[in-house]
Amino acid sequence: MTALSMHQASVPVFIRGLTALSAELEKAAASAGERKFDLNILASARLAPDMLSLAGQVQRASDTSKLSGERLSGTPAPKFEDTETTLPELQARIAKTIAYLESLDPVLFVGSEDKTITLNHIGDLKGDAYLLSFALPNFFFHVATAHAILRQNGVPVGKRDFLGPIA
Amino acid sequence: MTALSMHQASVPVFIRGLTALSAELEKAAASAGERKFDLNILASARLAPDMLSLAGQVQRASDTSKLSGERLSGTPAPKFEDTETTLPELQARIAKTIAYLESLDPVLFVGSEDKTITLNHIGDLKGDAYLLSFALPNFFFHVATAHAILRQNGVPVGKRDFLGPIA
Repeated sequence: MTALSMHQASVPVFIRGLTALSAELEKAAASAGERKFDLNILASARLAPDMLSLAGQVQRASDTSKLSGERLSGTPAPKFEDTETTLPELQARIAKTIAYLESLDPVLFVGSEDKTITLNHIGDLKGDAYLLSFALPNFFFHVATAHAILRQNGVPVGKRDFLGPIA
Repeated sequence: MTALSMHQASVPVFIRGLTALSAELEKAAASAGERKFDLNILASARLAPDMLSLAGQVQRASDTSKLSGERLSGTPAPKFEDTETTLPELQARIAKTIAYLESLDPVLFVGSEDKTITLNHIGDLKGDAYLLSFALPNFFFHVATAHAILRQNGVPVGKRDFLGPIA
């Protein structure tokens, strides 16, 4: 009854989401140019004072996706220092995250559904539960919140931008 | 190399997300009581004037999940009229959506990865691409945006509430 591979349900989903996020940041840059404000003001924009900024949302989307790749494939992910404060820096981080994910051979994910993944504050999960009940929701949380921040700041993005190319 | 069933990667994920959303709406009700405002004001709150309200986000999360169930299992989903304007009505809609999803026998999803799904404005997708590149991102978009609306209106919810029970 199994139909999907662990790779298929993780890496391409993350790459698609990160690619769409990058395209949304490009629209943000164009919008800042048209409306004549400093593009990088957006990096510190947030929905509530005790929520992460746009930079923080992008950093967490990067972390969730690369850590999923690392935990499921066993291939160490690059470490980033969370020092990005500008949109070009955030774009570079997204690009490095995508490059890591693209480097992962799907065969490394075989059997990862049964692997034990240990999460701080949560405990042990099987690989499939980790992916479906933690990694994917967490990833989309941060990408959708980044979208919401851009949207609330008047960047002309819509749900089709969030979804990216569908296929 | 397949590890996940189409049912496993859809129905329980939606049920978990909808259950978490329902719990967040309960926290909203408690917060409205404590802060002494009409709870139902939240149903029409939105992040931007041209985005859907909280009620709209809940309705779309319901639609995306029940339509995925219908398209992948072939079992007609209940139709809703999008007339909910209060939080109790939205809670009832979530409950009916969960009840429908719970009624679906996993065996009905076998082979759905190869089924052709036709989406308006998008075209034909295979069942697995439909689930991974459209249905799941779209579902989480609406649940995360609902969370963002509550968060921006001072409801004390955090990412753990969004994720719900992880397992």
